[in-house]
Amino acid sequence: MRRSDSEIPDIVVGRLPIYLRALIRLQQEGREITSSQELGERLGISSAQIRKDLSHFGEFGKQGTGYTVSTLIAELQRILHVDREWEVALVGVGDLGRAIAHYGGFAHRGFCITHLFDNDPNKIGEKINNLVIQPVSELKETIKKAGIRIAMITTPADSAQEIANELVEAGVGAILSYAPVTLSVPKHVRVQYIDPVLHLQRMSYYLNDRD
Amino acid sequence: MRRSDSEIPDIVVGRLPIYLRALIRLQQEGREITSSQELGERLGISSAQIRKDLSHFGEFGKQGTGYTVSTLIAELQRILHVDREWEVALVGVGDLGRAIAHYGGFAHRGFCITHLFDNDPNKIGEKINNLVIQPVSELKETIKKAGIRIAMITTPADSAQEIANELVEAGVGAILSYAPVTLSVPKHVRVQYIDPVLHLQRMSYYLNDRD
Repeated sequence: MRRSDSEIPDIVVGRLPIYLRALIRLQQEGREITSSQELGERLGISSAQIRKDLSHFGEFGKQGTGYTVSTLIAELQRILHVDREWEVALVGVGDLGRAIAHYGGFAHRGFCITHLFDNDPNKIGEKINNLVIQPVSELKETIKKAGIRIAMITTPADSAQEIANELVEAGVGAILSYAPVTLSVPKHVRVQYIDPVLHLQRMSYYLNDRD
Repeated sequence: MRRSDSEIPDIVVGRLPIYLRALIRLQQEGREITSSQELGERLGISSAQIRKDLSHFGEFGKQGTGYTVSTLIAELQRILHVDREWEVALVGVGDLGRAIAHYGGFAHRGFCITHLFDNDPNKIGEKINNLVIQPVSELKETIKKAGIRIAMITTPADSAQEIANELVEAGVGAILSYAPVTLSVPKHVRVQYIDPVLHLQRMSYYLNDRD
């Protein structure tokens, strides 16, 4: 039923985690059945869009009865490859890196930070959440050996490209970068960015000075 | 020259901050002139797309000579309303809130965190970066009085909707939420979300188990 990855637009793939998050919330609220209408209302997305997005991957709902929450959760987890737990390396243990290392929100969502790297001699050897901060000089070998495919970059902008190069050489295929700079990586590597200022500027466009 | 906001797709507005960030980086590298080709190569966006996006707002480049970096920066800052500095309130001073309060990357990009709120009695009164943490009970009045239009939510998911309601009542028109839950707000209020897991899941879709 599933088509090849290349046929499914990335924008559709990008909405699946939003559906999954909403479904898990419904499940926490004790709901067993939902519909594209209800999901759509919660998410501000049209029910037609949700049905169309899901139809890329199979038939999950029954006409008139809607979706079984637990089944759709399991299907989306399988499709997104988060029916397992990925080890994640985090590079750059400043304020933000520390906050992310402490963040409890990755567990049960498919990811677990298992390695921390920094190049500050004062931080190397320090323990955060039972993880020892390793020197960046050990990054490539450690990641290769552990078979880690996903990394987060929380270094300053100036170091981010260099770190990205090392991560790619070590076999990482997905990078989430908090550094406010666009990274250059080979085509087979995925990069996503988190820069709060980009979000703020996208909204300040709509704000008038004092309305 | 500028059309009314409603005619310009939000997806176009969303790319302007990315262009602005790249231009500022070019300026830091000492460059005075650039082109849609160069910008496109740096950003992985086609030069035609960049020219089309900018054409919504006016004529910024000259045929054959490209864009003057400083001029295009100033124009984009004006369009995005970041040729000023917006006061920003941050609600929820946990690990992440603290890291964001300490983050130096907002300055010179149009935003300044000026108010911190939390409901933990042990945190209220504490100073971070010369800002005193205020109780959430003072949120509405303080924000209204200060005329603050932009807020960040870094509370746990369960408190986020309640906080959003208070922010909207206080006159906030733009919310950046780090809480992993979709918020319900009136149509005139903009919300953007940062949830690292959504980005990670969007990428893990493309990763095979051990390839």
